[in-house]
Parts: sequence; structure tokens; C-alpha cells
Amino acid sequence: MAPVTIDTFMDQDEPHVVFNQSATMPFGEYIFRRLFSIGTKSVFGVPGDFNLSLLEYLYAPSVESDGLKWVGTCNELNAAYAADGYSRYSNKIGCLITTYGVGELSALNGIAGSFAENVKVLHIVGVAKSMDSRSNNFKERNLHHLVPRLHDSNFKGPNHKVYHDMIKDNVACSVAYLEDIETACDQVDAVIRDIYRYSKPGYIFVPADFPDMSVRLDNLINVPHISQQDCITSPTETHLFNMIDMITTWMYSSKTPAILGDVLTDRYGVSDVLNKLIYASKIWNFSTVMGKSVIDESNPSYMGQYNGKEGLKQVYEHFESCDLILHFGVDINEINNGHYSFTYKPNAKIIQFHPNYIRFVDTRYGEEQIFEGVNFVPVLQELYQRIDVSRLSLKYDPSVTPYTNETMKLKDPANDQSTDITQIHLQKVIPKFLNPGDVVVCETGSFQFSVRDFAFPTQLKYISQGFFLSIGMALPAALGVGIAMQDHPDTHINGGNIDEGYKPRLILFEGDGAAQMTIQELSTILKFHIPIEIVIWNNNGYTIERAIMGPTRSYNDIMSWKWTKLFEAFGDFDGKYTNNTVIETTAKLALKLKDLKNSSTRDRIELLEVKLGVLDFPEQLRCMVEAAAFKRNKK
Amino acid sequence: MAPVTIDTFMDQDEPHVVFNQSATMPFGEYIFRRLFSIGTKSVFGVPGDFNLSLLEYLYAPSVESDGLKWVGTCNELNAAYAADGYSRYSNKIGCLITTYGVGELSALNGIAGSFAENVKVLHIVGVAKSMDSRSNNFKERNLHHLVPRLHDSNFKGPNHKVYHDMIKDNVACSVAYLEDIETACDQVDAVIRDIYRYSKPGYIFVPADFPDMSVRLDNLINVPHISQQDCITSPTETHLFNMIDMITTWMYSSKTPAILGDVLTDRYGVSDVLNKLIYASKIWNFSTVMGKSVIDESNPSYMGQYNGKEGLKQVYEHFESCDLILHFGVDINEINNGHYSFTYKPNAKIIQFHPNYIRFVDTRYGEEQIFEGVNFVPVLQELYQRIDVSRLSLKYDPSVTPYTNETMKLKDPANDQSTDITQIHLQKVIPKFLNPGDVVVCETGSFQFSVRDFAFPTQLKYISQGFFLSIGMALPAALGVGIAMQDHPDTHINGGNIDEGYKPRLILFEGDGAAQMTIQELSTILKFHIPIEIVIWNNNGYTIERAIMGPTRSYNDIMSWKWTKLFEAFGDFDGKYTNNTVIETTAKLALKLKDLKNSSTRDRIELLEVKLGVLDFPEQLRCMVEAAAFKRNKK
Repeated sequence: MAPVTIDTFMDQDEPHVVFNQSATMPFGEYIFRRLFSIGTKSVFGVPGDFNLSLLEYLYAPSVESDGLKWVGTCNELNAAYAADGYSRYSNKIGCLITTYGVGELSALNGIAGSFAENVKVLHIVGVAKSMDSRSNNFKERNLHHLVPRLHDSNFKGPNHKVYHDMIKDNVACSVAYLEDIETACDQVDAVIRDIYRYSKPGYIFVPADFPDMSVRLDNLINVPHISQQDCITSPTETHLFNMIDMITTWMYSSKTPAILGDVLTDRYGVSDVLNKLIYASKIWNFSTVMGKSVIDESNPSYMGQYNGKEGLKQVYEHFESCDLILHFGVDINEINNGHYSFTYKPNAKIIQFHPNYIRFVDTRYGEEQIFEGVNFVPVLQELYQRIDVSRLSLKYDPSVTPYTNETMKLKDPANDQSTDITQIHLQKVIPKFLNPGDVVVCETGSFQFSVRDFAFPTQLKYISQGFFLSIGMALPAALGVGIAMQDHPDTHINGGNIDEGYKPRLILFEGDGAAQMTIQELSTILKFHIPIEIVIWNNNGYTIERAIMGPTRSYNDIMSWKWTKLFEAFGDFDGKYTNNTVIETTAKLALKLKDLKNSSTRDRIELLEVKLGVLDFPEQLRCMVEAAAFKRNKK
Repeated sequence: MAPVTIDTFMDQDEPHVVFNQSATMPFGEYIFRRLFSIGTKSVFGVPGDFNLSLLEYLYAPSVESDGLKWVGTCNELNAAYAADGYSRYSNKIGCLITTYGVGELSALNGIAGSFAENVKVLHIVGVAKSMDSRSNNFKERNLHHLVPRLHDSNFKGPNHKVYHDMIKDNVACSVAYLEDIETACDQVDAVIRDIYRYSKPGYIFVPADFPDMSVRLDNLINVPHISQQDCITSPTETHLFNMIDMITTWMYSSKTPAILGDVLTDRYGVSDVLNKLIYASKIWNFSTVMGKSVIDESNPSYMGQYNGKEGLKQVYEHFESCDLILHFGVDINEINNGHYSFTYKPNAKIIQFHPNYIRFVDTRYGEEQIFEGVNFVPVLQELYQRIDVSRLSLKYDPSVTPYTNETMKLKDPANDQSTDITQIHLQKVIPKFLNPGDVVVCETGSFQFSVRDFAFPTQLKYISQGFFLSIGMALPAALGVGIAMQDHPDTHINGGNIDEGYKPRLILFEGDGAAQMTIQELSTILKFHIPIEIVIWNNNGYTIERAIMGPTRSYNDIMSWKWTKLFEAFGDFDGKYTNNTVIETTAKLALKLKDLKNSSTRDRIELLEVKLGVLDFPEQLRCMVEAAAFKRNKK
């Protein structure tokens, strides 16, 4: 094998690698160097016999000198959740490595969640060798980890691609089951491009004999870096000009335009551009459920989270008074669209900006025009460059004030005395607990529904699985976010009023029922010294399900745990790295939240077990349940 | 709805139910009553919005009076493992209930394991309503938990059956996605029949509006019980006569016949018949890896576990001296067949007994005859009835003695003094620790390989995932076994020398890396008061992977846990229900094992953390690794 001269230098966040022409390296090394070159600096997963030959290249000198980090998780589902969190924070590709069958299937639900929520995840699966020199008929053999055929399995070999067939076209935007080493590098790069293009998960199935095979470095030489920007389809100049012309014309003629900041704006990395447009234009702006924190909610024309009739009246009345809606990064599903209850002012105009189309709707004439195959990223960028904000003629009702945490006028019965903690109390106090620039991960559950109407401080990054709603996801996802914050510090900060030198906190809000699903990953959070504040809402079970059905049924009960003992069992034997606090009263909560908010040392893990009422859930959850018509109609 | 008169009486283990003619009941109730009627007395799972309307019928008076038990697990993968364990112990159908997408996908790896290892599991998935009176176009809506389409998801509705399409024909023998309430009961029964017939998992997808709909009880009236026996294909009288004739002819003319007891003998519930045949005939008999404990290994002609050239020389030399092999419940895969190294005496005859064929092979003439579509169960039963053992002419080498725990002549360097515990020491002492009638669950891992060559005491039931090898499976599976032992006590005892009134122990052998995967289910074991002895082999990581590759690599490391603190965190706050012991020396181990073996009170959970060397693994694992050719051949 030809020696490889490697010279790595960093251009801001993006490493570039220079290689000798015509050099080769083992394919395993190629994979890890390619990952590092695109900013995937940590890889999650679990070792298994079919992926060990790949994992060996974690220790190749070039990979070690890059600094690529292996984050072994306790199980594969947690690895998938962590990779998802890594991508949600960094906007890079989160990567996990699992083994044939037993590992990859365990991870599947996490991948499906990433698919549903447009998260860039690469799932590398170590599979059976492409050839086995010791047995010619190995394809006819029933391999361990591989399900045999239903019929005649004692006579017919298994389908080696059975798991591949299950995920292809269902939960992956791109899949490569490698069979030819000559094209393997191209296939890896193609999957990466597709992941960026679709912002969805992709799979690479790597036969156990491939990592040791030599490949040419051409790809790394010719395209040292692949960015998301490289992978999207831009419109032609003419197209772009026409669209910008149409958009600005509609904007200039609108009296009450509104910007709706939706999730794909974040996934395609243009939240900062959208916020610049908002600050420059002073156009009323709303967030969506899944797009929460895309818009800087401290901006002076922020009008709250719009979720159709499921959201606050104070918000939807304003939204529905707007004559033009600019919906950026639009993603339509029942959760993000208030169970399809979005309503527009009569005769309003709507422009939807999507990774695959720009759509103009004029409801007055029932007309629409759609530019298909165009990604909204260059359109938004160009719009921000070209717009002449002096030509806007905004005429909002001057009596309307922006949305703040005071807008809801919550009636919290708690007073200054020590008293039980309620969800409505949390809605009052938690927003004040957050600092500008903090990173918040929130589990699916009852509390998640009240967060919808928080007005976050500037530059806060909010991460939550708002649509797929797989409980148990947030804890391992927070591990991934924490690792990403180590690999890509302050990625989410784009200007704003962050105190000089402020180190953003990572805060996890987690329900007890959900936490039990994936609790072992606390151990990995500890292993990687991730400073995090973990708030466990202990309400004795699945309160979100109780809100839907069976409020007092035993199926919604869970075992009572001593949450504050977990870290001791999971590796912090002497309490060196963690503080664990039980909180039962509003007074104690206030004290602890204040301490955490103002602390100057943030090197420890903080776990708060906050006791809540079993049947206490926020009003927003009740509205969702009603909208979803969960109630039973007995025949 | 017509009132239902229900009178349940028990005929041994099988409940029978008598109903009024032309009565109806809600479909949800039908499902649970049908399950109970086939001996599935506990159901595992996790509540989720799409299954709550079904779970409500757990509280129907008839279901409650049956005594059907809901065993809520911490997550769905663990529910699948538990249902698998339930079935492995009881030979009934293990059942789990999950919710659309997030739940069912999480469980998938467990189901695939059941499929690969022929375990009878019913996976009921709560899915979207079949109709939604509040929105006509609900099929066009992107529902939560349901992955949207890759292309044009903002315009086109999702495939409601996307997850169904993934599992169908891949990891299930039978699948019903219910769409018509009129045929729903038939479909449920058909899936149950298929599960029994194939001894593989089946799925029923239940729309959330179905449980409340009324169904007729005809099925429960006409077929109050469905047994596995009812679901298999028996040969015609003539066929059967011909086969028995051929089998006995071969047996009577054989001088050195051998019986190989394989896994499907257990799955089709005829291990006791096989053992009767062995005791009556005194034919040499061998177990297989997956069929471990099918044969009563204390029988006087037990010759050890045969696994081709991967097994012990002391065993394969005897096997390969036999002129006729009767292979009952044959299941062929690389693990169960020593990486396809089974070798027969020149000119030997072989008869394979399988649920779908009986195959006669005469290697002398290279001839074979196969009776397809015949299940071996009636053939084995008939064979036992018809054989005249006085006509056997056994001529085994008289110098050969049966296989016992002394056969291996293990050289254990440990002496009576306190010293480190090694795998070879465990091979010496663990067999003596087991009592007749105990139930042993063993995790995939290094220790599992030495268990292969234990000679178990009589009536011991051994449960291990020997082929699919998904680590983390055993702990939740042990929960399922424990529940099954409550529901169906002493099912595994068929005569033998069990002390009067002896309460079989449940013992779990579990590696530390595997235990971390699914550790939270300790909590459920505690909740259901399952007396169990849990032995955690603490060797600081994935030693089974170290044996294959990367012995000192960091990817094989795991976090150190304080195992003995886990139960305190998971609900046994005051140590009322558990004993937790760290064991570091052979002397302490001997003391504890003796205590446990002889204890007369077995109402507590015992957790033993046994410290082992990081790189210590049994010889049997080394043989497997070599046979599997894991070693890398660098190009």
C-alpha cells in the first residue's frame, strides 16, 4: 500500500484534508476520514462481530490524529437517538454503527424518528462478508443474527439483504448495500449527499471483509469536503430572479405579512438568514411546533407559536389577521399543523418555502403556482440580499403587542410559600430559568406541550421530537447533543445578546415514564463528562397517556424509582461528578433553579427529581387530545 | 349488546369457556378472552395512544375474572424479549402489545429473534383508526408515529401500512392488518393457528376504533380452545404406517443408533415423548446447541452435546461412530451445526424429523426420501407407541461411558484457597450449583459457550438465545420466564427425580455488557415479585467481542457500574426484597452458591456480581471463533 501523506488543517469548522495523488488506504479508514471531513467528529454505536473490522480503523493513526471519537452507548436504540441529537444540534450528519440484525433492528425506531423529523443520520451496519474463503457455499448458510427463511430454511439459504429490504424506501432516503469495493467510496459519498439533500437518514451496509480492502483516495482528494449546500438543487438565475420578484412584489403590497418559521429552516441551516430577515423587516413572525426556536423568540415582532386552533387564541387571532404568510421550511403533519386546522385570513396570499418547491397561493382567486425541484435555501438567501425593507408598508394593529411569557396571563395558584408543584407553576417559572444561548432538550410528554408557548430567550436552541413522539428518545438524544456541543461548540449562537464568555448550558426535561425506557444512557453521559442539568418530572407514570385515556388505570403506572441513586449505580460511586436533588415544593424548586441559572461553575451533572401530581397536565395537552379525537365512541 | 353469560372452568392447564349462543362482546374483550383461552395468561407491553382503547379491556369484568395479567415493561424491546421468554418456558404463545411505529419498531429486534429461534410470539400493534368521523381525509394526513413518504409528503398521505409491509414475510409467519370488523375474530384466530403451526411470531394490527366494536362470539363457542396440536399437519394413516415401518426397520437393523435432540422438539412440545423413547430404548443420545435441555441430560445413555468439530472431541468421536442418526426437531444453522461441520460415520443412515418433513437419508447409496408437509409430532408419538425395544440390537463400545460433568477433565488451577474466579473454575462449580428442576436463563456471551458442555441435572429447563445471539435479551426474557412460571407452574417438570415440594429456582446468568442494554427491567422483576437468582459476570466489557477482535480496544470497554446498588434505585428502597452480593474470590463464590442451592426460603431476589478477568473466556468460545473464520485476512 502506498504511504499516505496527510496534512489536515482547519478552515473554521470544516476540516480539509490534503492527500497524495494515487494513494490508497483501507476502506475502513476511508469511511472514518470521510466522516471527519464532513464534520461528523463523533460516532455512536455498539460493537458486534460484523462491525469489529470497521471499528478497528478508529485506531488508524490518521483517524486518531483527526480526533474522531467513538461514543459507545449501552444499546443501539440509544445510539440512534444520540446520533439524531448530534445532528439536531450541529446540523452535521449524526452517525451510528451497529451490527447485522440484532444491532440494526434495535436502532430502527430511532432511525424512523429521524426520517419522520428530517434529521440527518447515517446508519452504518456491519454485515456478512462479501466472500468467505473458508466456505464456498456460505451464502447458503443460515448465519447468526440473520433471520432464516420462513419456508424450507433447512434447505435454502437466507436472504442476506432481508433487513436492507425492510428499511429501503421506508425509513431511509438512500441506501447502499456494498457489494463491489471498486465503487464503495462513491457509494458512501452518494449516501452522504442524499442525506444532506433530503435531510433524512441513509444507510450503508458494510460487509465485514470490506474495511480491510484498499481503496483509492480520489474522492477525498477531488472533493475534500461535502457540505449540505453542495447537495441541494439551486434554481437557475432566471428562475431565481422571477421568484424573488414575485415574492417581493407580494411582500411590498402586503399590509400585514407574517413569517412562519418552520422546522426545515433549521434542518437546512438557514435559521440565521431567516432571523436576519425578521430583524431587518420587522415583519410579524410566528414559530411552529416543530420549528420551535428556529426564530429568535426574543425579537420585537415575535407573535408566538401558531398551531391552528390547537394553539392559543391570543396567537391564532393575530396569525389569522395577516394577509400574506411566508412559511419557511414548511413541513405538514397533524402535530405541526394543529391537526390540519391552519386557517388564513380571507383572500390571504401564502408562500411556502420547501427543500423541493416554492409554492405561491393566492386564495382570493384560488390560484397557485409551484416551482418544483427548487430548494428554498438559495431563495431565502437571495431574498434577504435583495429585499428593500423601505418598500414594505406594514400596517399592523398598533394595539397589538408582541408575544412574551406574560401574554398567557397564567393563573398560578402557587404563592411564595412552599406548596406543591403544578404544571401551570412550571409554565410560569421555567421560562425565567433559561438563559440566552442555552440548549434545551425536551422529552415527549405532558410538559412538552406547555413549552410550545414559552417565549425563549435569544439564541436558545430547542430540541424535541415534536411529531414522531417516541418516548425515551430525549435522554440519549441529550447525550448526542452534549457530544455535538463538545465537537462543535457554540454552533447555535449567531450573534444576539449572549454574555461574553457565557458557556451555554445543556438542559434536559424528561418525564419519569420516558426516562425508564432509556435510563442506562445516564452512564454514557457520565463517561463523557457532559455537563448537563437533567430535570426528571416524577408524576408516577405515563401522564400523557392518562390525559388521553385510562387516567387511573394500572397500565399507566410505573415503578417508583429512587432517581437520585441512579448515578451512584451507573458509575459516580463517590458523588464526584453529580449532584442529585429531590424537589417537592415550589420554594425548593425556586431556590434550585436560581442556583443553577446563576452558577458560574458548570462542570457537574445536575439531576433534579421534581415531584408532580399524577393527573396534572397542561391545558395545551388537553387541547391536543380534543383535536385528535382520541375519545372513544362506543358502538 | 346482548348480555354474555360466562362460565369459566379449568381443565388442568387449559381454560374452557362456555358462552351464550348469539351473544356479542366488544372486540377488545374478544382478544383478551381468546388469549386467556389458549393459555396466554399474561400480556407484556407499553401503553401508547393507539393501543389504549384495547388496553381498556384488561378491566372488562370477564377479563379481570379470568385473571389476565398486564405486565407493563419499561420499554417495548424488553416486552418482546419477555414475551419470548414467556413462550420458551410455557410453550404457550407469548404476547406483547405495542403502539404504532414508536412501539412496534422498538420491539422489532426481539421479534426477529423469536422468528430466528422459532418462538411463538403474538405481537399486537395498536394502529390508526379505520375511520375517523371527525375528518374525512384522515388517510391523507401525516399521523404522528407514522413516517411520512420520502417524496411529496406535504401533498400525499402516508402509507398507513408501512410498518406492516416491513415485517410481513420477513420476521412473521402470519400477519393480519385488520380492516373489517366482520372478519376480525377469524383473523385473530388464524394468526394464532399460524403461530402454533410454524412456531414463529405473528402480528395483528388493531385499529384504535376496533376494540370497542361488537363482535359475535361464535369462534369462542365453536372452538373454545386452540392448541398447538390442533394446528399441525398430521400424515394420513397409511403415510404414518409407512414411515413408522421404515424408521423402526432402520432402528432394528442399526447397531449404534443415536438420537439427536434438537430445538424444535421443544417448540412443538414433545420433549417428554422423546425422553420416554430414550429411557425406554437406551439409545445413545446427544443434545444440540439450540436444543440444550430438550433431552434429560441425566439419562444413562446421554453422550454430550454434539456440535460437529466445534464441540468436544470426547463427544464427536462417539457421535461419528454411530450408524444411524435420528435427528428430532432438526434446525440447521451455523451455530447449531458447528458451522456446518456435522460429520457422519461412513455409510450411516440419517432420519431428520421436522415440523414440515420427515427425511430419510442413506449415505451408503447417496439416496434420500422425503415426506414433505408432515409434522414430526405425530410421527414421534406414534414411534414411541409402536416401537418394540426388545428388537433393538444395540452394540455400543462397552468401554464408552456416558457423558457427565467429569468427562471434560477440566484442569482448574483454583484450589480451596481464596483466589480469582476464572471461566474454567465456573465450568467446574456451576453445574454442581444447579438442582434438578431448576430453570436457567443464560445470556449470549462468553459464559454461554461453556454451558454447552454442562450435563444438566434432570428436569432442568435451559433457555438461551443460541443462534440469533442478541445481547441484552436474557434479562427481560427472564422476566417473561418468571411470569410464565407463575402462570404455568412446573410446566417443565415431567417426572424425574425432583424432591417432593421442591420449588424450582429461576437462575439468570448475565454478562455485564449485555446487562447494561436492558437493565431497567430489573424493576419489573421486582414489581412482580419474581424470585430469581441473577448472576452478573462482571468482566468489564464485551468479552465475547474481545475474543473475536480488539481484545484491548476501547470499543469493547463499558462503564463500571455498582451493580449491587441497582435494585435500591429501581424500587427496593429499603432492601426488603433483594440481596446484593459482590463476589471476587472462589471461596466466597463457593459459600454463596452453596447457600443458594440449599436455601429453603426462596422469596427474595438475589443479585450476585461475580468479578472475572477481562480477557478470560472459555475454550469453547475460542473454537467457535476459529470455526467462524472471523480473523481478518488483510489484502
